[in-house]
Amino acid sequence: MSGNSFGTLYCVTSFGESHGAAYGGVVDGCPPGMALGAADLQKELDRRKPGSSRHVTQRRESDTVEILSGIHEGRTTGTAIGFLIRNEDARSKDYGAIAEKFRPGHADYTYWQKYGIRDPRGGGRASARETVVRVAAGAIAKKWLRERYGVVVRGYLAQLGPLPIAFKSWEAVGTNPFFSPDESMTGKLEQFMDGLRASGDSCGARVNVVAEKVPVGWGEPVYGRLDADIAAAMMSINAVKGVEIGAGFASVAQKGSEHGDEMTPGGFLTNNNGGVLGGISTGQEVTVSIALKPTSSIRLPRRTIDAQGRPATVQTTGRHDPCVGIRATPIAEAMLACVLMDHALRHRAQCGDVVPPTTMG
Amino acid sequence: MSGNSFGTLYCVTSFGESHGAAYGGVVDGCPPGMALGAADLQKELDRRKPGSSRHVTQRRESDTVEILSGIHEGRTTGTAIGFLIRNEDARSKDYGAIAEKFRPGHADYTYWQKYGIRDPRGGGRASARETVVRVAAGAIAKKWLRERYGVVVRGYLAQLGPLPIAFKSWEAVGTNPFFSPDESMTGKLEQFMDGLRASGDSCGARVNVVAEKVPVGWGEPVYGRLDADIAAAMMSINAVKGVEIGAGFASVAQKGSEHGDEMTPGGFLTNNNGGVLGGISTGQEVTVSIALKPTSSIRLPRRTIDAQGRPATVQTTGRHDPCVGIRATPIAEAMLACVLMDHALRHRAQCGDVVPPTTMG
Amino acid sequence: MSGNSFGTLYCVTSFGESHGAAYGGVVDGCPPGMALGAADLQKELDRRKPGSSRHVTQRRESDTVEILSGIHEGRTTGTAIGFLIRNEDARSKDYGAIAEKFRPGHADYTYWQKYGIRDPRGGGRASARETVVRVAAGAIAKKWLRERYGVVVRGYLAQLGPLPIAFKSWEAVGTNPFFSPDESMTGKLEQFMDGLRASGDSCGARVNVVAEKVPVGWGEPVYGRLDADIAAAMMSINAVKGVEIGAGFASVAQKGSEHGDEMTPGGFLTNNNGGVLGGISTGQEVTVSIALKPTSSIRLPRRTIDAQGRPATVQTTGRHDPCVGIRATPIAEAMLACVLMDHALRHRAQCGDVVPPTTMG
Amino acid sequence: MSGNSFGTLYCVTSFGESHGAAYGGVVDGCPPGMALGAADLQKELDRRKPGSSRHVTQRRESDTVEILSGIHEGRTTGTAIGFLIRNEDARSKDYGAIAEKFRPGHADYTYWQKYGIRDPRGGGRASARETVVRVAAGAIAKKWLRERYGVVVRGYLAQLGPLPIAFKSWEAVGTNPFFSPDESMTGKLEQFMDGLRASGDSCGARVNVVAEKVPVGWGEPVYGRLDADIAAAMMSINAVKGVEIGAGFASVAQKGSEHGDEMTPGGFLTNNNGGVLGGISTGQEVTVSIALKPTSSIRLPRRTIDAQGRPATVQTTGRHDPCVGIRATPIAEAMLACVLMDHALRHRAQCGDVVPPTTMG
Repeated sequence: MSGNSFGTLYCVTSFGESHGAAYGGVVDGCPPGMALGAADLQKELDRRKPGSSRHVTQRRESDTVEILSGIHEGRTTGTAIGFLIRNEDARSKDYGAIAEKFRPGHADYTYWQKYGIRDPRGGGRASARETVVRVAAGAIAKKWLRERYGVVVRGYLAQLGPLPIAFKSWEAVGTNPFFSPDESMTGKLEQFMDGLRASGDSCGARVNVVAEKVPVGWGEPVYGRLDADIAAAMMSINAVKGVEIGAGFASVAQKGSEHGDEMTPGGFLTNNNGGVLGGISTGQEVTVSIALKPTSSIRLPRRTIDAQGRPATVQTTGRHDPCVGIRATPIAEAMLACVLMDHALRHRAQCGDVVPPTTMG
Repeated sequence: MSGNSFGTLYCVTSFGESHGAAYGGVVDGCPPGMALGAADLQKELDRRKPGSSRHVTQRRESDTVEILSGIHEGRTTGTAIGFLIRNEDARSKDYGAIAEKFRPGHADYTYWQKYGIRDPRGGGRASARETVVRVAAGAIAKKWLRERYGVVVRGYLAQLGPLPIAFKSWEAVGTNPFFSPDESMTGKLEQFMDGLRASGDSCGARVNVVAEKVPVGWGEPVYGRLDADIAAAMMSINAVKGVEIGAGFASVAQKGSEHGDEMTPGGFLTNNNGGVLGGISTGQEVTVSIALKPTSSIRLPRRTIDAQGRPATVQTTGRHDPCVGIRATPIAEAMLACVLMDHALRHRAQCGDVVPPTTMG
Repeated sequence: MSGNSFGTLYCVTSFGESHGAAYGGVVDGCPPGMALGAADLQKELDRRKPGSSRHVTQRRESDTVEILSGIHEGRTTGTAIGFLIRNEDARSKDYGAIAEKFRPGHADYTYWQKYGIRDPRGGGRASARETVVRVAAGAIAKKWLRERYGVVVRGYLAQLGPLPIAFKSWEAVGTNPFFSPDESMTGKLEQFMDGLRASGDSCGARVNVVAEKVPVGWGEPVYGRLDADIAAAMMSINAVKGVEIGAGFASVAQKGSEHGDEMTPGGFLTNNNGGVLGGISTGQEVTVSIALKPTSSIRLPRRTIDAQGRPATVQTTGRHDPCVGIRATPIAEAMLACVLMDHALRHRAQCGDVVPPTTMG
Repeated sequence: MSGNSFGTLYCVTSFGESHGAAYGGVVDGCPPGMALGAADLQKELDRRKPGSSRHVTQRRESDTVEILSGIHEGRTTGTAIGFLIRNEDARSKDYGAIAEKFRPGHADYTYWQKYGIRDPRGGGRASARETVVRVAAGAIAKKWLRERYGVVVRGYLAQLGPLPIAFKSWEAVGTNPFFSPDESMTGKLEQFMDGLRASGDSCGARVNVVAEKVPVGWGEPVYGRLDADIAAAMMSINAVKGVEIGAGFASVAQKGSEHGDEMTPGGFLTNNNGGVLGGISTGQEVTVSIALKPTSSIRLPRRTIDAQGRPATVQTTGRHDPCVGIRATPIAEAMLACVLMDHALRHRAQCGDVVPPTTMG
């Protein structure tokens, strides 16, 4: 399978460039008979949409999705679901000045050296705008997981640059432009972002995603582990540099007597494992945390080289998110939903006749 | 592709259980003509072998590998390389007492609920002993990468429980049973482990792996990213709960002006990205860090349930590593090597005619 | 990988239904730097287009293709090539009468029973109109194979219903609406088709496809054989019921002394094997022959059942090809080209360093 | 996925060479809980075994299979099933004389040119002896299909060289060394084979395989069609040059009114489609027919070249089947069973919640 597809049974294929005609995707493997329309995808796309507050890129894209196939009379038919999102506000002239230079932290240099050619307009294929496809595919997965298994996938911003954000409530997440779960932090976050924008710099972020009500048994030994596929899905999101499941890096300093989640007839007592043991879901919440690096496009001057290998300076003046992490929450949710749906299908393929023998919780 | 295989072109398939007849693997896709013999695999297997010091499990396994196919007169033929490692010291009686209980932190419960049946002897398929297959497959990848591209893949223990270990030298790594890169720490580490063993508890670890001389251009947009595949490979190792590339989670608190690696005609000035931008190798060192949870099998009593869902207590008295991270270094190296080789092949498939146009460094 | 994608490295993903908004495809894995535009695809699509003579369906589709991604300044960038072909002449009302009945020979019944839902308009996903995607993807493969290796893929109609057509010349193929290689047969074929149409019935066909100048060495043991992948690709074309490589079914009655192609320093003396031995190309022409069943949609009344399982009669009055085989030649060429390109890439991935040691021919 | 594996969910990986240490395979994806032991595999291997009559190769191999993993207390655990078949009677000296020449009709030349190296002993990886792996994997699939769905997969010799064999009864198939379904033909077949052996020549064969009680709904549009996967599986068998489903090549001369299988409340009236419409099983028998070329190894002198490209003559004096088709029946059955099982799993993954809405037959 080539690099622009992912998933074994719930398989997503993506195409499109930042300043090309359109982004689009094909979702293959969705079970038939589910009510689905463009509105289901649009709802999630709108959560990711640029221009929704002054803290994100001011590029004006309605991100309107058109479903081209796979639906008949409002229901999935089981055949491939093709969809399209036209680019509207592609100001390619913004990029003229940097077409010949490699922007530090971007994929300009690596695409150029790998392919010997690149679309420099807005990062081309490497643009984070590609995540519209993921969010659309994830919307379908979320809907199916919820309707079929009651699984709920949601996330929040857990840290903005130097500012950690404690989890207060899921309700809070929808009340502010940061996906912050602590409403009382909103003023502080806005102030920080205003200062950051003024400075011409950018910052990183941490996003947490949680899947509730995942049944026990999803995931495959030994390379097809649920957590391995989650790690790949998350690391494939633009700017992600780290992935944790459950206690993550905190496990390093834990003792076994502290980390190993004890069990009682009422259920697990803790969830250091993040809902996955031996690569298979435990029935607990699946908890994932990701690190997003600071946006590479900043207004401050940076040293680089040009295509001829000569020293150069680059300053990015296009419209960019000063913190890509702010809009990453719906994207991370989408990726987790896609992986879970893929494993739900894989599990019932092999183990469709198994009734989990032990009852707990 | 099913869960016991990984890799697109350099494809590894694994089978075997802790107390079954044997572990084995099939490596498909290795280029022809490379000198290869069992000794090449054995060398790496011996680095992972149990019983090599008092700080690891005392299970006595020679881990002798037999190559069954794919080699003719000492060279790879390009056909599938099958290999076998017989189990020798499987004391299944050790497990009689726990066959009916789920050990906290282990995959006992998840396998049982997923499959409705499990091999309880030594964790069955979920045992970390499966990593012999990875190490053998990685030995082939390491050899090819070194001979064909000069790539060197190596790793070290960066933290043992609460004790961080600074990188001093690659030479140091081979001088102690911990893969510690700081010889002066050896006494401290031994003391810590002796205390840990005496306490009946276990601890976690951090392992760093580095690939040097990786050419620019390996990796595929947008889901087939080099770092995404590395993340999956690492997270698929038993006990791994977190993966970082480059600056990893430290990126969260960095500014863009700090994180984005500047370039000059002499090369990149820093390596926060860990040798990967946009999912494609930059030509710098690929740097990966992983978190391993503490061993789940400990002598201390733990609350659990049995197969009937009744409360129970479990104490593990079999032979176990008090810190699985100690033997993880060769395993993590092997996984990184396999992913790199897979991407080397994938890259030359698509871009075999491209000459990287810009010279740097 | 799901059912709507094929190919390992040159990977084609398809979506669309006969009477939906559009057909589209994603071609992943095309090498970068090749000159490519919509015209390259259109040229092949026009060869397959309906309405080009009175002997094929009179549905009016311009089959205009739009490339949405993967091209920059007229050259492939190595990223996914998305393309779209809007449906224009979808007269869904034609199908109202048969929406509740299963047309014999069609996939109506199997889709209905598999998915519990189906798009009955024009066969939905099962329509042979899906082959526009194959032809578009094949056009890219053909161009690359020709430019990179000099490989030429072309085909012809070898039998129309009861009428065998001898191969006279490639030039003849383009001079008539049947892809017949014998110009002198054109009158006879037209007469046969006129009679067939008048009778309300349909007929089968045989199409031969040949790839010239395929280098020795493409194909993989033992399941990834070049001929196995060709067989799958051909059998996946609508209406195909048989596939032969080389001597095909004639091999059954041959002796070994007759079939086994002898070799001399000047080359092979015969080509019973059809250019493939042990699943690997020999350097000879790759020759493939396929059987296409008669069109299932006919005007004659046929016994069937309806969705409630009650007996019914069906007569198809929509616009259909009386012989789907007539338009199958460019489709079969496209599929062969895609498989060859996939194997060209796979071969150089694993064997990119091998120089074939023996010179012949 | 590399060439030595096949199947999406029921995935078979194979290794081994004719004169190497062993053949082996890994079956991944088998559902848990099925009773399985070496005897289940051995039974099918014995049907394929060499030396069982004077009409097949006299190589003495017991083909004893050892299961190494994936079974616990006589039941499948859902993890990878590894198995091994040691080679016993490898007389490599037989091949010394031909190591430097390419045998016509064999893969000697193509392997040599592809890889630049080959194992010449008995054809190495290209030997039909590799089919032991397929038969073992097929035995597991057959058992599961039969126990879970009542599916029966069986085949017979339909033509031996010039001699067509009419289907008389399944009972007859087991009564003679040819898998002939017509007992009255046995004498004629023996006489023909005796003459053929005496002449030093070889002949081709046709084998038919049938799967009964396949439920409606298995198979995926549009490239993952059941018949496409069957075609690949069959064409991947050594010596196969043609594959037909249902009416196969006879469809070419049929009319639509003759070919299209009519339906009544009692079921389909005919089965020209061979149990597959639109790539999806109809609920009828799946019928497949394959052409096997004559054995390439014959005692008669043949023109060829050596590794230096010089003219040479080759006569094969090793032990060979004068008609590989005779032993092909269990192999073709195995391949069909593997494909069906793969699609059974794939179908319930996506459509596990669908109840086929229409009752017929």
